Order: sequence, then C-alpha cells, then structure tokens
Amino acid sequence: MPNHEFYMDLALNNARSMRGQTYPNPLVGSVIVNNGRIIGVGAHLKAGEPHAEIHALRMAGEAAKGGTIYVTLEPCSHHGRTGPCAEAIINAGLKKAVVATLDPNPVVSGNGVKMLEDAGIEVVVGIREEESRKMNEVFNKFIVDQRPFVILKAASTLDGKIATHQLDSKWITSEEARYDVHKLRSENQAILVGVGTVIEDDPELTARIPNGRNPLRIVLDSKLRIPLEAKLVTDSLADTWIFTAQQVDVNKKRQLEERGIRVFETSGETKVDIQDVLRILGEHSVSSLFIEGGGTVNASFLEQGLIDKVVLYFAPKLVGGKNAPTFLEGSGFDLMKDAIDLEEGEFTKVGKDFKFTAYPVRR
Amino acid sequence: MPNHEFYMDLALNNARSMRGQTYPNPLVGSVIVNNGRIIGVGAHLKAGEPHAEIHALRMAGEAAKGGTIYVTLEPCSHHGRTGPCAEAIINAGLKKAVVATLDPNPVVSGNGVKMLEDAGIEVVVGIREEESRKMNEVFNKFIVDQRPFVILKAASTLDGKIATHQLDSKWITSEEARYDVHKLRSENQAILVGVGTVIEDDPELTARIPNGRNPLRIVLDSKLRIPLEAKLVTDSLADTWIFTAQQVDVNKKRQLEERGIRVFETSGETKVDIQDVLRILGEHSVSSLFIEGGGTVNASFLEQGLIDKVVLYFAPKLVGGKNAPTFLEGSGFDLMKDAIDLEEGEFTKVGKDFKFTAYPVRR
Repeated sequence: MPNHEFYMDLALNNARSMRGQTYPNPLVGSVIVNNGRIIGVGAHLKAGEPHAEIHALRMAGEAAKGGTIYVTLEPCSHHGRTGPCAEAIINAGLKKAVVATLDPNPVVSGNGVKMLEDAGIEVVVGIREEESRKMNEVFNKFIVDQRPFVILKAASTLDGKIATHQLDSKWITSEEARYDVHKLRSENQAILVGVGTVIEDDPELTARIPNGRNPLRIVLDSKLRIPLEAKLVTDSLADTWIFTAQQVDVNKKRQLEERGIRVFETSGETKVDIQDVLRILGEHSVSSLFIEGGGTVNASFLEQGLIDKVVLYFAPKLVGGKNAPTFLEGSGFDLMKDAIDLEEGEFTKVGKDFKFTAYPVRR
Repeated sequence: MPNHEFYMDLALNNARSMRGQTYPNPLVGSVIVNNGRIIGVGAHLKAGEPHAEIHALRMAGEAAKGGTIYVTLEPCSHHGRTGPCAEAIINAGLKKAVVATLDPNPVVSGNGVKMLEDAGIEVVVGIREEESRKMNEVFNKFIVDQRPFVILKAASTLDGKIATHQLDSKWITSEEARYDVHKLRSENQAILVGVGTVIEDDPELTARIPNGRNPLRIVLDSKLRIPLEAKLVTDSLADTWIFTAQQVDVNKKRQLEERGIRVFETSGETKVDIQDVLRILGEHSVSSLFIEGGGTVNASFLEQGLIDKVVLYFAPKLVGGKNAPTFLEGSGFDLMKDAIDLEEGEFTKVGKDFKFTAYPVRR
C-alpha cells in the first residue's frame, strides 16, 4: 500500500512544476485519497487563483467525504483572495489531513492545523517537511524577514580564479553552464553587480533563454560612476536600480533619473550600505536576489553573513596567477576557523563543468 | 555465460589488491578458464617473485590445456628474473589468450602477443584496456619517459585559498581528508615541497597511517635556506634530498651532507630547474612524485606542463581575501583559453570534504 511519502511526493511534484508562475505566492501541491484511490490532485497555479487544496477538492467532488488530503503547506486559516482552505477541507467532510510543513509566517503558523483539529480532523505534520521547505526557500525567507533570499553565484576555474592576471575571462565555463545561469536569472526577481563589472564588461544581465523573464538589475555604485552609455542605462530590457553611498553628484543622478533609472542613496558614507540595499529591496517586494558581483562585492555580502545560498560553477581547468582575481576577495577572514562553513553541499555536472550548491551555516 | 569483461575484472581486482607491494614492478593479474570454469587465478605479488600468469598456470596445472588465459598486461617475452611468461603459456597448451593492454615499454611492446600468435594461440587485446592502464599509470609513465609520475595535491577552501590573508591554515580539511593524504604519501615514492613550506610549517612529510611507508622527501631550495634544525634535516624518519640552483653556499651544503642530507645542484641560475629535478629523480628510479608545494611551486610545475594528475581536496567553506594565498600562484596564464584543461574529472566525498581527481590534457 502506498504510504504518506508516496502521496506527498506526488503533491510536491505537482507543486514544483509551477515554479516561476506563482510569485509572490509559494509553490503548493495537494492530493486527496479515499479508499486507497487518488481522487483529486491540485496545485496553486497563479496568485489570485485558487489554492492547491481547492483544485484538489473540486476534482474529488463528493468522493472526498471521509478521505485524506495531502498538502505540501499548512492550509490557510484566513480570508485572503480565496476563502480559508481549512474551512473548505472541513466542509468537504475529510477525515484526515497530512501536511508537509507549517506556514512559515510566525503570525499564522499552526492556525490552519488548529482549525482542522478543532473540527475533529486528524492531522499529521512533517511528512517531507525538508523537501517542502527547500522548494519554497525564497518565499519562506521573505515572509519571515521581509528581505530577499540572497544567492551568491560565481563561475571560476578549479583554483578559484574568475579571470587571468591580465583580467581575461572569456570563457571560463561551457555554454551549458552559462545557459544554466540564465535560467537562474530568470527565476530570480533581481540580479546584482558592482559598478566595476559594469565599467569592465558592460553586461546586459538578462535571461537569454526561451521565455526568459529579465530580472530587475541592481548596481552597487557608491560614487555614481556608471557610464550614461552603459547598456544597463540605455537598453530598456529591464529596470535598473542603482544604490549609492551618501552625497553623490546630483547632476549625474538627475541624468540617470531622466533615463528612467532609479537611484537610491544608502546610509553608507563612502561605501554602499548593503544592509540598506536588502531592506529597500524587501520594501519593494523583491523576494530574491542573485549576486553576480566580482570578488569584492561577493566578499562584502559573505563577510556580513548575508548569503542564503551559494551556486558555484567550476570549470575543469587551472589557470594560476598570484594576481589573478578570485571570486571572493575583500580582506577575508583572519583565521581559518572563522571561515564560513557550507552545509548540504552537492556537486552536479553541467556540460563539462561542475555546479556546486550549498547553504552557509548560520551562526 | 560470463564474458571476457567478467574474467578480466576478476584479474584486475586481484592485481589491484597488491597495490604498494610490487614496486618497481607493475600490478598484474591473471585468470585461467576452461570449459566455462575458472581453474586458476594469480597476481604478481612482489618484485623477484613469479609473474601473475605463472601463479595462475601453477594453480590450473594440467587442466590449463585447451583453456583461455586472461592477463591484465601483455605476457612478457624476455628472460628476466623469471622465464618469459609467453613461453610458459605456450608450453601449458592454452588455446586462447585475452590481454587487457600491451606492454607500455615501446622496446618490447607487442613481442609477447607475437610469440603467442606464432605458436598458434588466438590472442584478443584491449579488453578493459583503460582500466588496466589507469591501474599502472605510474609504472607506465616511468617505463616510457624515465621520469616520475607527478601528482599535484592541494587542499583548499572552495574559493581556492590554502590559508587566510594572515597565513593561518589550521585546519582547512577534515581528519578524513588528511588521512587520505597520508595514504597517498605512503603510495608514492617521493614527496616534494618548496623551502618556504619548510621554513613556515616545519613539516615531517611522513605517512602517519598504520603500516605507512614514508616517502623520500624532496625540498626545492634554490639558495639552500633550509634551517639545520628543520625536522626534515634532523628527524631521520626518511631520506631528505635538497635541490638547489647554481652556486650555493658550500659550507651550508657540507653541513647538510654531514647530517645525511643529499644536495643536488641543478642547472638553474637563480631558481631550481625542475626539469633537472625530474630527470635526476628518474635516474634514481623514483617513479612517482607527490607535490605538496605552496602556490608558487605548484604553479611552476603546472606552467611547464609537468603534472600528470591532480588530486584536490576542497573543504566546504569560504574564507575570502584578496591577499589570501591560493594553491596556484606564479604569474599564471595570460589568457583564459590557455588555461590547463583537466579531463576525467571526478568529485568524491571524503569525510565532509570533496576530493577531485583529474588528468591534465596533453598539448
């Protein structure tokens, strides 16, 4: 007989298939089972449309009575754009609810489960909890902290270099790895670079894949050195926001604003205050930030403990060079024991390159 | 019915089990099959003792007549310490011989097969050829080039750093990874570091594992700066050889030699000539060299195309630092397209760390 995990995996698969289309809502999937048969499946498709449970209940119809519902996220207990799902589950006469994980929002977490239990429904929580949380890691962070989920991305040789000592960097990784990066750009709300990268490479920072959605482009530019002819200023392919330190050239600022660029002054006196950047992005509902900075920008986020996930692409090559830049510069930590530990590290192959994903250990 | 690969895998497994005990001979295994039954297995155990085929033939006895012999390396055709194996195979009345790979020595390669074929024995060559060559990669290199097989080893953070900007390096990798390094030290004939490492760390460079065999310790020391009180000079745990540039302090040289240290002057005027080092080691029958140098020593071998294999340990941590040393320094290549490509790259987990092995692409 299939077990809880079997049905929850189906709900998770349905939920994950909607990746990229539910923003700002989380991915959620649901399955309804009665007498050993699946009688309903559902997923949340789009903000403003019904939650996963509602779709599954509609498919099940009368047959739902006495059955078990599987949901990857705790059913809601509040009247939002749709009615509370917990109420719908109670009204449909279900006997049991299996939930992967509670609502991450501390204000409402547990309320849905309580509403079901008060109505006499047996509730099991925690089946595939880790998988469900991982699936919505961006949403979960944002809902709790009101700050974007920050992904540090780098592509380097195996000896950590992002360019040669002459600053040549074309190309380090394969086309397959670069395609993978464009997919990640498309999945994230915003992308961030330092002004050095803009001056050096004049990048577009767009998602060049079929149906790619271009992220909001963020530039850290303490002294507003960005050239007015930079593609980020002129190409209109996506919005560009610039974050500066205090007291920048008002004339340059006006010129940029006339071109549709937003300029935010942070509280940093000489350097951009990146805590301010994350706060302001959060206030503008930017839930995820993909950092493709050089070694200095990357290090400033790392040293302040602001990275939620790392995605590193390693090309199977060695270039050497005492003066060749690595993807993490700055001053770095003084002692090896203070280095940032990464957990859940995994290597996978992308083309001929290796992709490493992991999560910095909180401390 | 089992196929050629099945029997050859058994021969390979027997051969590999003798790793570390056949030096300076290669690993070789053999299986004899007749009427679908295995009637003999053998492996070369130790230099001076019988070859694999002879052990297998002895086990098979009279039953070998009309059978098939599997050998991981072409049977020898010359009178060495034991008689030619090809002759023994012919005399035993075998009908067929399956060989993984020909002898790597160009002077004799193919002779064994020819001797068998001339005697009317059917010969198949190339079954598990790659596996057999890989198993004896050190021997094959040495027999052809009379130079040691050079393995570059490094242990770094994921951003390529081997120490912090303050040169703190304890510890980067886990105990399991360090144990793995000691195993590799034990398997290699010699270990090489730069004098900087000796001055900085005063290492023992020994194989601290049960039954570990300490490798010959090689120091690159252009100006003979090694302290007389360094462990490598005083501890007698293994021989220490020092390679210098031209015109070193004869007094210091004499003091070292009085302590049992050998000092070799290479042809380099200000820097040690590492081609000379490899030539001299080859002349002294050192077949494998394990490089645990700092970034400068490592880069000099890499830039001159002298690395045969890389073994890199990556700790899942990020330390950063523009001035933190990486495991490959020197000047490095000018253009990214000139970087050394690595092939057959593989990541495996060792404790909580990642071990990467690969082979530089020849060019």
